[in-house]
Amino acid sequence: MTAPAGPPASAPEPIGPASGGLLRSARRLRLRKQRLSQGRFLAEGPGPIAEGLAAGQVEAVLATPEAARQHPDLVASGWWQIGSTELAGLADTVHSAGLVAVCWHRPGDLGQVLAAGPKLVVVCAEARDPGNVGTIIRCADAFGADAVILTEGSVDPTNAKTVRASAGSVFHLPVVAQVGLDQALAGLRQAGLKLLAADAAADLDLDQLAAEGGLSGPVAWLLGNEARGLSEAARRASDQLVRAPMWGRAESLNLAAAAAVCLYATASAQRAASSRG
Amino acid sequence: MTAPAGPPASAPEPIGPASGGLLRSARRLRLRKQRLSQGRFLAEGPGPIAEGLAAGQVEAVLATPEAARQHPDLVASGWWQIGSTELAGLADTVHSAGLVAVCWHRPGDLGQVLAAGPKLVVVCAEARDPGNVGTIIRCADAFGADAVILTEGSVDPTNAKTVRASAGSVFHLPVVAQVGLDQALAGLRQAGLKLLAADAAADLDLDQLAAEGGLSGPVAWLLGNEARGLSEAARRASDQLVRAPMWGRAESLNLAAAAAVCLYATASAQRAASSRG
Repeated sequence: MTAPAGPPASAPEPIGPASGGLLRSARRLRLRKQRLSQGRFLAEGPGPIAEGLAAGQVEAVLATPEAARQHPDLVASGWWQIGSTELAGLADTVHSAGLVAVCWHRPGDLGQVLAAGPKLVVVCAEARDPGNVGTIIRCADAFGADAVILTEGSVDPTNAKTVRASAGSVFHLPVVAQVGLDQALAGLRQAGLKLLAADAAADLDLDQLAAEGGLSGPVAWLLGNEARGLSEAARRASDQLVRAPMWGRAESLNLAAAAAVCLYATASAQRAASSRG
Repeated sequence: MTAPAGPPASAPEPIGPASGGLLRSARRLRLRKQRLSQGRFLAEGPGPIAEGLAAGQVEAVLATPEAARQHPDLVASGWWQIGSTELAGLADTVHSAGLVAVCWHRPGDLGQVLAAGPKLVVVCAEARDPGNVGTIIRCADAFGADAVILTEGSVDPTNAKTVRASAGSVFHLPVVAQVGLDQALAGLRQAGLKLLAADAAADLDLDQLAAEGGLSGPVAWLLGNEARGLSEAARRASDQLVRAPMWGRAESLNLAAAAAVCLYATASAQRAASSRG
């Protein structure tokens, strides 16, 4: 169905059908280069779009009449009508629920992050899986981290899969991308954070470190590539190598699961320390 | 390249080129119905196949000559030669590394799991995402859980994406599938496990429960559907609703991340209690 349907009683009228120009520039946002040059990216589905609106980062909502009727709150500030064919050309999934938003990108700034006195930061060094990185951003948000830093060679945080896996968390906390590893680590160290490298082969485990009080102060967690782990340079630049304790037969955790456990344990230890005074 | 290449010096000779019959029955294993009726499934890539071999569950290894040369240990007990066209018809990913194994399925048995006196079990109630379920099986393995139970309506544990996301852990611990929720919970309770339902909206959080000693005994974690969470019936059947503590703005964690945190915290508390006791 691409023929415009009459506006339903419960949704505001569309501004109009999405123009060819709007559709073309939105479709181009599926390419990283275009996202960088336009300073925009696409968010799909009700959850992420609601977070984008709350953050004031939505430029245009494109919706099918059915979706507009189902989500009147998301189209209240105006929307462009599209049909299922146009939707398919924009959406990364078949479950986009009929809504796509063009959003302004606000790249996180390393200097600002460091100046704000961060207590918990995640650094992904060459993480390549968009879903993993989105899940890590969501975990970082859930556990109250101050920022996520993606070093050069990591996936683009405005990738459609990353935005979706973040469940809107890309709109919640600064995500600094395309930073050199050395620069990030030097800055974090200077800002007083301890640099902990997550490494399944480390001698020290998270429980031991927590018991020694080693998770109570400001911490930055370094996570490596899904297949290769952390580089020698990243290990050497860290203060300690730490593993999640594992008592079964799996040799390692998936990257996002490791991030979840490290962030939870650290946030939990930091809260306990600050409530003790 | 589908033309047979000469066997390289470092790999044993193939038994022969994979026959049409072997290829046809292997290809059918991409369908759940066929996996159930044949009692077999496919594992892809060096890691999972190595675990399958160690578990004695590999019936046949199909490999390209290049892959056989690169992984002589995996083809040492015999292998069938395939070309890239046959590989593409079997593999779920483009990164299968040239190796696919037909594996015997050993379904976990609820009675056996319960009779063994389990201390930590994960129950997925209608978890639908194959990657999530595979990651949960991997986490359960990593943190030493005794079994994973997938209730009716959950994804099939021998799904190619699940096997891959489990990184071989499907070969390490019993995975009981297609069990009724009531039956599973009644059995676990009778076996002395406390039933904890993971619920982002619960009042009680994991840290509070741990501080009260509530994670030190035998525990079964109930995890719900990715979109809908746990059903009313599952909540009512649980002893306590518990959430991972979240201090940021994300409303919830991804299912596998929640599982990782709950399992880590429980395994950690159980170890600490048993080392004190």
